Amino acid sequence: MQTSSPLSSLRSTLSALGLDGMIVPRADAWQSEYASPHDDKLAWLTGFTGSAGVALVLQDRALIFVDGRYQVQVRQEVDTQTWDIHHLHNDPLENHLPASSRIGFDPMLMANSQFEALKMAGCELVPLAQDPFATVWHDRPAAPIGAIREMPLSIAGESSEEKRARIAAKLDALDADYLAITQPDNIAWLLNVRGSDIATSPVPLSFVLLSLNGDVEWFVDERKTATLPQALLSSLTLSPMEQLVPRCQQIASGKRVQLDADSAPVALRFAVEQHGGEVKWAADPITFIKATKNQVELEGYRDSHHQDGAAWVNFLAWLAHEVPVRIAAGNPLTELEAQAKQLAFREQQENFIEQSFGTISAASANAAMCHYHSSESTNAAITADSFYLNDSGGQYHNGTTDATRTLAYGPLDPQRKLHYTAVLKGFLSLITLTFPSGSFGHQLDAFARRHLWELGLDFDHGTGHGVGHQLLIHEAPHRIAKKVNPWPLAAGNIITIEPGYYREGEYGIRIENQVEVVDALPGFCRFASLTMIPIDLSQVELNLLTDQEKQWLDDYHQQVRETLSPRVDSDARPWLFAATAPVRVQVS
Amino acid sequence: MQTSSPLSSLRSTLSALGLDGMIVPRADAWQSEYASPHDDKLAWLTGFTGSAGVALVLQDRALIFVDGRYQVQVRQEVDTQTWDIHHLHNDPLENHLPASSRIGFDPMLMANSQFEALKMAGCELVPLAQDPFATVWHDRPAAPIGAIREMPLSIAGESSEEKRARIAAKLDALDADYLAITQPDNIAWLLNVRGSDIATSPVPLSFVLLSLNGDVEWFVDERKTATLPQALLSSLTLSPMEQLVPRCQQIASGKRVQLDADSAPVALRFAVEQHGGEVKWAADPITFIKATKNQVELEGYRDSHHQDGAAWVNFLAWLAHEVPVRIAAGNPLTELEAQAKQLAFREQQENFIEQSFGTISAASANAAMCHYHSSESTNAAITADSFYLNDSGGQYHNGTTDATRTLAYGPLDPQRKLHYTAVLKGFLSLITLTFPSGSFGHQLDAFARRHLWELGLDFDHGTGHGVGHQLLIHEAPHRIAKKVNPWPLAAGNIITIEPGYYREGEYGIRIENQVEVVDALPGFCRFASLTMIPIDLSQVELNLLTDQEKQWLDDYHQQVRETLSPRVDSDARPWLFAATAPVRVQVS
Repeated sequence: MQTSSPLSSLRSTLSALGLDGMIVPRADAWQSEYASPHDDKLAWLTGFTGSAGVALVLQDRALIFVDGRYQVQVRQEVDTQTWDIHHLHNDPLENHLPASSRIGFDPMLMANSQFEALKMAGCELVPLAQDPFATVWHDRPAAPIGAIREMPLSIAGESSEEKRARIAAKLDALDADYLAITQPDNIAWLLNVRGSDIATSPVPLSFVLLSLNGDVEWFVDERKTATLPQALLSSLTLSPMEQLVPRCQQIASGKRVQLDADSAPVALRFAVEQHGGEVKWAADPITFIKATKNQVELEGYRDSHHQDGAAWVNFLAWLAHEVPVRIAAGNPLTELEAQAKQLAFREQQENFIEQSFGTISAASANAAMCHYHSSESTNAAITADSFYLNDSGGQYHNGTTDATRTLAYGPLDPQRKLHYTAVLKGFLSLITLTFPSGSFGHQLDAFARRHLWELGLDFDHGTGHGVGHQLLIHEAPHRIAKKVNPWPLAAGNIITIEPGYYREGEYGIRIENQVEVVDALPGFCRFASLTMIPIDLSQVELNLLTDQEKQWLDDYHQQVRETLSPRVDSDARPWLFAATAPVRVQVS
Repeated sequence: MQTSSPLSSLRSTLSALGLDGMIVPRADAWQSEYASPHDDKLAWLTGFTGSAGVALVLQDRALIFVDGRYQVQVRQEVDTQTWDIHHLHNDPLENHLPASSRIGFDPMLMANSQFEALKMAGCELVPLAQDPFATVWHDRPAAPIGAIREMPLSIAGESSEEKRARIAAKLDALDADYLAITQPDNIAWLLNVRGSDIATSPVPLSFVLLSLNGDVEWFVDERKTATLPQALLSSLTLSPMEQLVPRCQQIASGKRVQLDADSAPVALRFAVEQHGGEVKWAADPITFIKATKNQVELEGYRDSHHQDGAAWVNFLAWLAHEVPVRIAAGNPLTELEAQAKQLAFREQQENFIEQSFGTISAASANAAMCHYHSSESTNAAITADSFYLNDSGGQYHNGTTDATRTLAYGPLDPQRKLHYTAVLKGFLSLITLTFPSGSFGHQLDAFARRHLWELGLDFDHGTGHGVGHQLLIHEAPHRIAKKVNPWPLAAGNIITIEPGYYREGEYGIRIENQVEVVDALPGFCRFASLTMIPIDLSQVELNLLTDQEKQWLDDYHQQVRETLSPRVDSDARPWLFAATAPVRVQVS
């Protein structure tokens, strides 16, 4: 029997600390997109399980702030008698901080840019020396201690020593003595390691201090590093994670420490500034440098996509057979059955480790929700009169994949065909682009939207994101979107191209290839597809395609066919050949 | 006989003022694109006549900074024994200010953003109380006192009183007591007046202080306002321009004065801050509000383009006859002859006032220079083997026009045709676009470039700029360019679409229409051409045009033909009909 609610427990703590309130973000110390259950204080406190949000607990009120995606879900999950619900962006937290109150927050869970925004509100923000949930959250899941493994040079393509020297040289140019590396994927890259704290995100939750001379101090739970080779461990200093802040205090005097204002815990700023040091605010240089993949990494990406493509073709061939049979039998295939079978096909691939994100297996109206994940309660049937959308990928030892195909198992109505064709034309327009090296994502984004715009339609998500090398599925800093992205694109970058169209309550369409940016004419780049999966042309209004568009499709399908036919199961090969037949043959 | 050079005179002044150096910008107090000879201290001091640059005069050295456009010209115009030449952006002024020196500058000629950049250099910047050139420049041209005329409501479409109330309401929302309106085109819009201080730029060089209650104090030389109607003059307070700074000092105490950091003289900041006031830095709200033209203004633009189109067609028909005749006679037509004839045709139009900018009349290799203006020394012949580029426009009583056509008078080689076709396809791609209302110029720019990019080519200027209503040819804030422009486009905006391609020493191509942004499908906009001038299709590789592109050309030419045939000279009408014949007829 629970004697006190999480909320009342937290309020008791507030009183004990002499605080009027406390800020409880969804964030972990790394501002991770996917955080561990250990860090999900917000769910424990409020019941809200979404991936972004923040609560403000006062003695007489409790408020929760979530973004547009979660306005429905939050009302289903939290007790609206207890919690006032607000929009994270339109009516943010800083509007609700009572003036001249003392509000506590955990400075490990807040980046400087967030702290600065809250400071404007005028209340007293009190950084807590201890995690308040350590005492009040009794059945809290333990912090993950996933083993960290070394990524061999044969896959990484550059030694950790070379990387450390490269980044230390940047540090010198940037006039800093230390770089605090607080983004775990940057640590993974620098040290040539991969973690297993969080499913689908092979990053080691930890911190690094890199000094001007290339020395690395790695703040990490030593239980995670037990199996790492001695050569790696002896090349750096290991310290417990709890030592990060004291260590920053210790080194600060007279030194300049570079921090990323949008992700480094503001606790590090306090540690440096209150102990005689100076903070240099700048993006971690690794973020941009890491995005230019070396030749070994690029080869790994390509191979991982060949494996993933084979798994996709096996899956799609199976679907092509199974869906009509099951419809005819009156027992149509479901989203969850499909995604389970797809995972089984991926698991047959030699280098497959795990999924690279939670599969989106969405039939009919479910596909209209961009971030849908099927569950027993929503598990829809794949029918002949609407689309089935599958957005999924794998973590392979040599790369990370992400692709979307939208499929149909019967002739669809003209509107669905028109919208599918518009999405395809946008996809083709961007993927066939030649552009100056150094262009920005926001300059290129509209090519993917133009054909929808002509119909008075659009889609409300970005057009493309970076993908890590056996790392995060959404890798900074590159992005193709309406929003300005200040990072120039050049050969060696990896990005997705994924326009879509969503009709609430009816259907959703998305076509996504992962691509590498490659050199074209001098000074110019183009995209080369990593993704090797046939694109469903059964619902395309072929008369709306230009000759150039048909040619690209035929060339791409020829490449897919030639690349994958030796790799796919023999019973999938006839489907592969049919699905990659030239458009002109299909037309005639 | 000149007894002392400008430079030595200025150096004497430096000594008298106890300064180590002085900054002499090309700028006037309005940061005007086109400034009066009175303000051209830089030319007097250095000999450099370009439209942008700055000099730094020290006792022992003299430096001049000009941008990439002027690196050749500056070496022709200034004494390189005396002046060290530097690149304005790559090696800027702030790199050359000697530490712990006292450097004078005129705070009326520098905006706050420029001042802040220079302050970083660490020397002592000394604002001068008096214009130093008032004493040393003996034969200085007088400041212009061009008469200011009222723009009638029948052309402006909104009374000055309504405009003042609209802007004062914005001031209230922005939490300011006063708005200093320092951009003369914004004053012209607010007061419904037009000036004549500077050829082609009908703005009244003056300043306005607008108060929260809508009161206007106009700082202007009263000789300019002599013929303005009493009703207008009695609606505001007139003060001499010299009173602006004292007046800002006088009102400052306890007040918030809104200034534009990029254009308001930093002298106003000093006046406000040193007298107990607070500066609110924000763009003048008029800049954005003015860019949404009202229905009367839009009607005026359209009519002015019909007049300008008729003048163009008369000119082009004359050229079509004259160029071959003159070539055959061995006495080919020149750039200067052509532009003189074009001006004569414009002057036949009822509402024509003057040119809206210096005509670019450029044959063959001269057209490769984007900002070329023909002169006796450069005056090239229009030949049959290259392009003739004409970029020109008019100030009409009801609108401002700007258009470019590139013409050929003989069959050109395949490379020229290919490049002309690529420019045309870029022009068509952008002008046929449907886009969400609120899109930004940087999102749309690449459509105009894609077909050049496919050839590994590009052009090094913006794709489009705003155009004022009987105002500045380059009107802020909208721009279509690679560079980020933070101002959303919506119905009622006026902008140009002008891709080009330039091959140094060989030829230049540009096709430009001025367009209005109009509503299309709900939430979406498109462009509607204001420019009514046939596009030369004689050099187009028609097999590279899509059916959609041909259709647009045919529709546009039909509109041009129907609009202009009643307006053009009768002997130009056959040419108009031939030049606007449908593409399909021309093909067959």
